[in-house]
Amino acid sequence: MVRFETELTVRYYETDQMGVVHHSNYIRYFECGRIEMLKAFGLPVERIEKEGVMMPIVSVDCHYRLPSTMGEVLRIVCTIKKLPVTRLVIDTDVLNADGVRIAYGVVTLGFIDTLTRRPSRCPASLTKVILEHNVGEIG
Amino acid sequence: MVRFETELTVRYYETDQMGVVHHSNYIRYFECGRIEMLKAFGLPVERIEKEGVMMPIVSVDCHYRLPSTMGEVLRIVCTIKKLPVTRLVIDTDVLNADGVRIAYGVVTLGFIDTLTRRPSRCPASLTKVILEHNVGEIG
Amino acid sequence: MVRFETELTVRYYETDQMGVVHHSNYIRYFECGRIEMLKAFGLPVERIEKEGVMMPIVSVDCHYRLPSTMGEVLRIVCTIKKLPVTRLVIDTDVLNADGVRIAYGVVTLGFIDTLTRRPSRCPASLTKVILEHNVGEIG
Amino acid sequence: MVRFETELTVRYYETDQMGVVHHSNYIRYFECGRIEMLKAFGLPVERIEKEGVMMPIVSVDCHYRLPSTMGEVLRIVCTIKKLPVTRLVIDTDVLNADGVRIAYGVVTLGFIDTLTRRPSRCPASLTKVILEHNVGEIG
Repeated sequence: MVRFETELTVRYYETDQMGVVHHSNYIRYFECGRIEMLKAFGLPVERIEKEGVMMPIVSVDCHYRLPSTMGEVLRIVCTIKKLPVTRLVIDTDVLNADGVRIAYGVVTLGFIDTLTRRPSRCPASLTKVILEHNVGEIG
Repeated sequence: MVRFETELTVRYYETDQMGVVHHSNYIRYFECGRIEMLKAFGLPVERIEKEGVMMPIVSVDCHYRLPSTMGEVLRIVCTIKKLPVTRLVIDTDVLNADGVRIAYGVVTLGFIDTLTRRPSRCPASLTKVILEHNVGEIG
Repeated sequence: MVRFETELTVRYYETDQMGVVHHSNYIRYFECGRIEMLKAFGLPVERIEKEGVMMPIVSVDCHYRLPSTMGEVLRIVCTIKKLPVTRLVIDTDVLNADGVRIAYGVVTLGFIDTLTRRPSRCPASLTKVILEHNVGEIG
Repeated sequence: MVRFETELTVRYYETDQMGVVHHSNYIRYFECGRIEMLKAFGLPVERIEKEGVMMPIVSVDCHYRLPSTMGEVLRIVCTIKKLPVTRLVIDTDVLNADGVRIAYGVVTLGFIDTLTRRPSRCPASLTKVILEHNVGEIG
């Protein structure tokens, strides 16, 4: 299992007229989390794209439990439980400063060959960094 | 069953460096669809909020099948299959100009009393317009 | 002079916790206006980009006079007063349903050769459609 | 003169199909800069709003010199040269990791009494923190 935490601060323009973060932004926070994870692992998304692989989103879901407001520091926790083959599945939690889970969801990414625009397999470079950061059993 | 279609054009800033609409924007398109539906039904969200009820998102999911690009006209189709009690569930499809489904998902909204900030039931005004626009069996 | 009007409806997620449209979105509305203009003129931005010319923004300003709220229908008015050579300058006004100007600004775009990534001149196709839609004196 | 620097990382969804940050996002980066500044000064925007003063944007401009791409770390530099009375003017620069200025602009904010919704003066709490952080002559 790979687990990575990062923090971000809720931005003013991310709130809506209910006074809280608009729900669509958590989908973006999920992305911020996994992008920081890959960067921290030494394999930023830009490099994967330069290696000729794009990672389009196959599906995403998000469950909202508590609102968050402007200026709050949120913790984004990404977890990979299975070694990717044709899909990379990332469980993502969003915690507030008290450690309370305010939203969570699952993001499934695919792999596309940039040149042929056809589905491909998880690039070896990504498998490698996932295995390097595996802190528990991984499927 | 209530069914409502609306159209929108993909905006330039909604694309990302893959050259296609960023996946988070479909969550926003879903919202555009249901907001136009309520407006067309004579009960715009602003009025529901003024009546003292907010409709926070409980959960959302989205499955992505095909990309869409800048300038494309998308059709957003919202379907309500069950009369809401404490939850309003809206199936949402996004079709391209050829009628092909490019994304779909389910949005579940709750009801919150604006004053007490506590969960409430579906306001009678909303139940009424749903029944008025019921074009088939509804649960 | 070329003048073009288009309409758009304020989206829920474009509001912020002040209950009004976040100021950054007017910059996006400006873009929606000019993109619809070019499309209506038969020369959509996608085609200009396919012809090998990108139009990066050189500068933009915006003056805010009145707020706008969710669901409002805004009218975006784009005006071109001078035939572009190395720059395309578009005055943009945003009016509410009462015809009152709520924001306005000037957008200056440049022309970049997609291949060389160097500044280029206004493509002939764009000059042509501007002249075709000239309804008054143009500099 | 008050000067404050903060950093942010360009997010994936902030890029557009040109492969660079969409121009509207710099307006948002400007806001991130000044909001971090006020927070660092011990007077976050949320507190100013709770004190009954909103700070709507009066005008903004932005000049774009170089593009920035996904993952880049940008430095946002906010400068206040004059003590605000009815307007707060913040010069804002965006520098890349090499210290090269890629965008800059001026943001002018007003002050509105939350209750009366009428223009008001700069709250004393804000004048105080500006004077406390004055590192040079201020007008």
